[in-house]
Amino acid sequence: MSEQRATLAVIAAEAGVSQATVSKVINGRSDVAPSTRERIEGLLRSHNYLQPGRQNRARRSGLVDLIIGGLDSAWAVEILRGVEAECAQRGVGTVVSLVPPGEATPSSWSALPVQHHSDGVILVTASVTEAQRAQVERGGVALVVIDPIDLPDNGVPSIGATNWAGGLAATEHLLELGHRRIAAIGGRKEMLCSQARIDGYRAALERAGIEVDRDLIRFGDFQHEGGFRCAQELLALPEPPTAIFAGSDQQAMGVYEAARQSGLSIPRDLSVVGFDDLPMCDWLSPPLTTVRQPLEEMGRLAARALFQLLEDQPLVSPRMELSTELKVRVSTAPPRL
Amino acid sequence: MSEQRATLAVIAAEAGVSQATVSKVINGRSDVAPSTRERIEGLLRSHNYLQPGRQNRARRSGLVDLIIGGLDSAWAVEILRGVEAECAQRGVGTVVSLVPPGEATPSSWSALPVQHHSDGVILVTASVTEAQRAQVERGGVALVVIDPIDLPDNGVPSIGATNWAGGLAATEHLLELGHRRIAAIGGRKEMLCSQARIDGYRAALERAGIEVDRDLIRFGDFQHEGGFRCAQELLALPEPPTAIFAGSDQQAMGVYEAARQSGLSIPRDLSVVGFDDLPMCDWLSPPLTTVRQPLEEMGRLAARALFQLLEDQPLVSPRMELSTELKVRVSTAPPRL
Repeated sequence: MSEQRATLAVIAAEAGVSQATVSKVINGRSDVAPSTRERIEGLLRSHNYLQPGRQNRARRSGLVDLIIGGLDSAWAVEILRGVEAECAQRGVGTVVSLVPPGEATPSSWSALPVQHHSDGVILVTASVTEAQRAQVERGGVALVVIDPIDLPDNGVPSIGATNWAGGLAATEHLLELGHRRIAAIGGRKEMLCSQARIDGYRAALERAGIEVDRDLIRFGDFQHEGGFRCAQELLALPEPPTAIFAGSDQQAMGVYEAARQSGLSIPRDLSVVGFDDLPMCDWLSPPLTTVRQPLEEMGRLAARALFQLLEDQPLVSPRMELSTELKVRVSTAPPRL
Repeated sequence: MSEQRATLAVIAAEAGVSQATVSKVINGRSDVAPSTRERIEGLLRSHNYLQPGRQNRARRSGLVDLIIGGLDSAWAVEILRGVEAECAQRGVGTVVSLVPPGEATPSSWSALPVQHHSDGVILVTASVTEAQRAQVERGGVALVVIDPIDLPDNGVPSIGATNWAGGLAATEHLLELGHRRIAAIGGRKEMLCSQARIDGYRAALERAGIEVDRDLIRFGDFQHEGGFRCAQELLALPEPPTAIFAGSDQQAMGVYEAARQSGLSIPRDLSVVGFDDLPMCDWLSPPLTTVRQPLEEMGRLAARALFQLLEDQPLVSPRMELSTELKVRVSTAPPRL
């Protein structure tokens, strides 16, 4: 570090700018004139401070940045568990940065790997802009995204789960139990994973020859409050559903509370299926039937993909989806006649 | 890193040992003969590889190790949130290491700060042996412990919550509602924080002139399963309790399930109080009355204490306890007559 700081001072002097301006270029800030940026980047290269692209990866710091954007902790910590386990096995440290819920698209994350001198970044549920991708690339840092909000079309490798198949399996389970009036609660509409789950739900109904009733599809966010509010609306319908497929386990907990407040017993009066299979599903009362997302495995896979990139090994595919699995517990039963 | 590796090779050559042996000394392993260790430590010092104590703190890496031992994720992530927020504010990265539940006393953590070249360590629910303390001291790394399993008598600063006062407040709340047959479920007996909560419970009963019934005090661990099993036993007593004070929110969830399986409705037939105030307390059905532990604040305070140590500022006290607060929600009500 101190060597690098010395280099910084030398470069600032040679470029005739302040050290702050050199830092801005290193951190990819936009408030530097293009000609100045070019001059400084040339000097950084000649001093071996920043080599573009892969050459830089040779000097490893043994750190990976895990940047978790805009989602609740119970979900994210399962991914952390996988990333940390895979990194620890290689003696690599996992530097965790949490972006508060609500700021779904962290704008500043792409400066962190430079700040921490880390080898790679795993980004959880966020978008990647072209400028961010370029900044990471300039720093010679590898990048993998878990559950991107939108599918990055810029070649950034991403990891997800088979959300569509999960939505299909959840709904088919309810159909097999005899339910015909099945509602679905999705996350925010712009989130790809949410859309895929709802599409799987639709597909199951269509395959069973049941017309999709738009009144039975609601969108909240993936939090408890969204599930609670949507379930209240659904249970207040003239012809309420006998089963609800929630887009996340936390939403399902909101459905539980709406049912309790309506005097409905789960699963006798209402069947509920969640999505994620957080550890708490086993602890709910009654234990929640849900679609398991292998979150820990997704974290492991993201870390493995990152190490492959750092070793210049090709990935099997830029987009990998791990399979979901229905876990039947106590919250689903045949509808009351 | 590479410079340090070169130093390692030189030192190994000068000491006439293998590089593996030098690594063992750096990592504080015990399988090195004392005379060899002394020779290697001397060379490490003369090569400025490891300077004992504070001098080493001058060369900061901008990283802090957060080592979370043997507890479940929902709890730990609240602490992580606080540590990360405080570190991020200072541009310091938080390197997270999770020790799997069950391994409550990580034996290897004290090598991590050396491995990551970090400035300090925050250790969550673990013991600190004299050897570990010495290893951290040798590396010139600052150390703070959150909720130590036992109170470190070796001067290691620690952060906790007012567990005794929390147990007292929970039990007084139940007494005020009119309960007289109140049970308590503790965590593992050797954990200080658990013992303090149970002692607070006893104190409240004694102050109310109610004799403590040993049959009504059970010990599980802080997990769901422990709460479930203990609650089953309590509800099967000839004269079961009308209220249960659980030592953690996860235990309280186990009590919920035991109540459901016994056909008891909360709070009508059984009142339940938890401990921690995890975000999920609001989402439980019914929402859980609990004793709030300011976990995020405890994380922040631990990080602030660490930075104070690094800046050679004295701490107010080697042991700091943040106050707990009763959060009354829906799971407590007067007993049925």
